[in-house]
Parts: sequence; structure tokens; C-alpha cells
Amino acid sequence: MSFEIISQARCFNGTQFVYRHASRETGTPMRLAVYVPPQAGDAKVPVVWFLSGLTCTEENFTVKAGAQRVASELGLILVAPDTSPRGENVPDDPEGAYDFGLGAGFYVDATEAPWARNYRMRSYLERELPALVAESLPADMSRQGIMGHSMGGHGALTIALRDPERFKAVSAFAPIVSPMNCPWGEKALSHYIGPDRASWRDYDACALIEDGARLPGILVDQGTADGFLDSQLKPQLLEAACAKAGQPLTLRRQDGYDHSYFFIATFIEDHLRWHAERLGAE
Amino acid sequence: MSFEIISQARCFNGTQFVYRHASRETGTPMRLAVYVPPQAGDAKVPVVWFLSGLTCTEENFTVKAGAQRVASELGLILVAPDTSPRGENVPDDPEGAYDFGLGAGFYVDATEAPWARNYRMRSYLERELPALVAESLPADMSRQGIMGHSMGGHGALTIALRDPERFKAVSAFAPIVSPMNCPWGEKALSHYIGPDRASWRDYDACALIEDGARLPGILVDQGTADGFLDSQLKPQLLEAACAKAGQPLTLRRQDGYDHSYFFIATFIEDHLRWHAERLGAE
Repeated sequence: MSFEIISQARCFNGTQFVYRHASRETGTPMRLAVYVPPQAGDAKVPVVWFLSGLTCTEENFTVKAGAQRVASELGLILVAPDTSPRGENVPDDPEGAYDFGLGAGFYVDATEAPWARNYRMRSYLERELPALVAESLPADMSRQGIMGHSMGGHGALTIALRDPERFKAVSAFAPIVSPMNCPWGEKALSHYIGPDRASWRDYDACALIEDGARLPGILVDQGTADGFLDSQLKPQLLEAACAKAGQPLTLRRQDGYDHSYFFIATFIEDHLRWHAERLGAE
Repeated sequence: MSFEIISQARCFNGTQFVYRHASRETGTPMRLAVYVPPQAGDAKVPVVWFLSGLTCTEENFTVKAGAQRVASELGLILVAPDTSPRGENVPDDPEGAYDFGLGAGFYVDATEAPWARNYRMRSYLERELPALVAESLPADMSRQGIMGHSMGGHGALTIALRDPERFKAVSAFAPIVSPMNCPWGEKALSHYIGPDRASWRDYDACALIEDGARLPGILVDQGTADGFLDSQLKPQLLEAACAKAGQPLTLRRQDGYDHSYFFIATFIEDHLRWHAERLGAE
């Protein structure tokens, strides 16, 4: 077991773990939350990754989304990583803003100083952590799905679009669909990746689709009362990019829902069933 | 509307509110969380009270238990009050301990100085808040249930045992069943109520049953891996008191579950269905 157990609790007849491990990519200890359903054991079960949004840790999804009930029924392992490296020596936003630095890794491999040393969430999630999950958990790595919220929706979409073979199911809650075209994304990418906007396209779901990336399907839920809808999230950009490219997209505008975990909790069952169908889960 | 809206969010087709109001009983502003299901409106619906445990506010149950999904289906208003008065002028445990003072009102009317002025959670929950709920929400006050966790399980059981006509359903998660016989309770009652142990009996579910109080039934879930089981919770005392008195009790020992909200989330649906059946909800 490469993971040190920080806590574990029985939950819906399975076990909710919080793990810590030393990350080679970020150069820091990293925490993650993992739910192991009762079906896991000698038999390996599918894995669904959940990437969280700005300011979150591994905890938010784990305590607020109500996902374990459905994962227990469907036999899915849930993996919820942290959203950035953390620690005394990890550089943060100079003004301590919530939308950059700690809790705001944006799922990139930073190339610019001083971020490049620790902010390697892309490689962490594309290579290091999947290898540890495969080695440490009863996880069938041939059956992976990925979903996320807000910044984590951006992470889920871009990681999947860059490696469609890895994931059989992809979905997002209120994702940042085009970081190149919103203040959160422009701030993050200009600092982490530098001023050359062409190099940002690898981190923009709409640009990846324009550049030819494809997935079998994408499920997106977006609340119509989300305070970030018009300024940051802009689902119409994803809708347009998918329509132009012939990329299948199921975009549901949910009337009156905001950006909170009350929104996620309401629709998490739909998303997990979407994943389970595509992962051949129970 | 006597309640000031602090926040509201759409959730499972209903609305999750956080309210604030000036309390006459505690002499402080009090917050509470209220879930209003989609069935409420012109029609009034039943109300289930949830009393939380040590250190909690109105938020813990609201974001962690996953109760709204079931309340939405069954058409139940959920009311989650805070666990004590709060504010600069409210006296706290002199050593800042978690088990007394702020976040630890124990659902009593304190009689001792300096606690007596603000710590009036009994009267707050027995008279003041129900009147405000009746006046402000689409709540059918002839159909009330009450449940709670740990210290809040103690609160739910004792409030119901003292006023069985008010509640058609009563349940608890890992309740403190006899504050007179555990360190948490002895500390709280000796400070809030004073040294005369006879006056504590009104705040002890087992003593109330011994003294003749009865309910139509009580549902209790208790995890066997709960770290407070032997030192503080002692469900066997409730079991013995109920057996001796002929008080119906459904006590379920849940194998491997601890004291956390992962335990509550796992069994909240059972409890809400227990309440809905007895409240004549959908």
C-alpha cells in the first residue's frame, strides 16, 4: 500500500478513506479521498474520478455530494484528489486570492517560475496517481470515468479530451469550459503557462475540440442561477464548439440551481448512473 | 416572515434556506437551516426537527447528511437549529473545551450563573422556535417529528418524552441516552443546572422513562465502532430502561459504523421514512 491511511469510516456498507502519500510530481505530500464500495475485494470494480473546484480539498465532494450512496449501489470506486500541492514551501498567490495558487492548481503542468516546481497536477493525475491507484486499490483501470465541478469540470474535460482511450465516461457540473475566455482561466494560465496563448490550447476543452479531440459523449449539468454562469463558465462556448465539431454533448440547463454542492448533490445520481452504464458497472 | 434569509439554494427541486432571527429566549441572534420540499406551498407539509451534536452548528446536518433527497421525495420540511447561543457576550467554557458552552447547549434551560441568561435551548426549541416556524413556514404543526445525533439525540429524546403529544415520530443517531451517567452529561448538567442531581432527571431520557414518560415508539441507530460508545453513549441503559418500563424501542446496532456523518448519511433515509410513515407524509 503506497497510501498512508489518515482516516477511514464505514459508509453505505463500504469504506470512505482519506489517504496521504508523497508525490514525486508535486514534491509535496498529497491527500486524496477514496470510497471503496462493498462490491470491491477479490473482484476489481470501475473507478470514477471527481475533480473539485477552486478552494476545495479532497474533503468537499466527499462530505457534501452524497455520492457514496449511489457508488455503493453501483459498485464504483470514487477517487477525489486535492486541487493543488500544499505546504509551507509551495508558492501561493501573492495576494492570497482564492482563484490562483493553493487550492487552484487548474490541473496543469506549470512551466513558469516559481510555479513549475510544484504545480504539476496534470502529470500527477495523468500518470502518478493512476499508477498508485492501480497498485493499491481493487480498481479495474480498464474501466475509468472522470467528472468534476467548475475548475474540476475543466480538469475532467481536458484530461479526458487529451486521452480519450483512458476514460469510458466523462461528465461535469458547471465546468469552466474555456479558460482562455474567462478571467479565472486567463489569470491561471498566464501565470502557470506563460503569455503564449497558443500553448494554452491544451488546457481548454473548447480549443481541444476545435483542434480535433473527440469523446464518445459528454454530460454537463449547469444551473441557471449560477453566479459564475455569464462571467466564467459560459456553457454556450462548449455547445458551439461541440456543434461545429460534431462532438456529442448532453448539456442540461437546470432551472434555478446555483454553483453550490446543493446543486451537485441533486444531480450526482444522474452522473454516476451515466458513468456506470458506460463502465459496465452493476 | 420573522426569519431573515442568510442564504438560499435550490436543492432536489425544493429550497435549502439558512435563516437568522433575534431570539427572545437566548437573548442572541440564532441561526437555523430549513429545507422546504417541493410539495410545500399552499399545502402545509409535516416538519421533522434535527438536533445536532457537540461542536455543530445548523450547517453540519444540512451539508453532510444527504437528507434533502429523501425529504424532497417524502414532502417533509427539515428544521436544523444551532446547538447553543453564540456571540461575544455569551459565556463559554473557561478552558474553551468542546463539550460545554458554545456549541454544547445540551438542550437545557440553565439555572446557574453565568449560564442562565443565554443558555435556554429548551425553551427556545419547545416554545419560541416552533411558534416562529408555524408562523413563517408552510408547516403542518400537527404533524411533527424529531430526531438528533449524539447530544442532539439526547435533546430529541428528552424534548419528546416531556411532550409526547407534540411529536408523532422520534428517533436518534448514537444518542447520549443518560447524561446523568456519562462524563459529557455530568459536566454539562452540573454547570448548567447545579449540583442537585434530582433536578437533572428532566434532562435524562432514561430517567424520564423511569419516571413514567412514554412515547409510541423510538428508533435508535448506534454504530458498533463509535469511539464514544462505552464512555458516553451507553445504549444499553436506554435498552434496560425501556424494557423495564414497557416502552417500545427499536435499537439497531450497526456493525462497524462510527460516530461521524458518514454513519448518519447511511441511515438517514431509514429514519426519514420512519418519520414519514408516522406523520402521514407521502
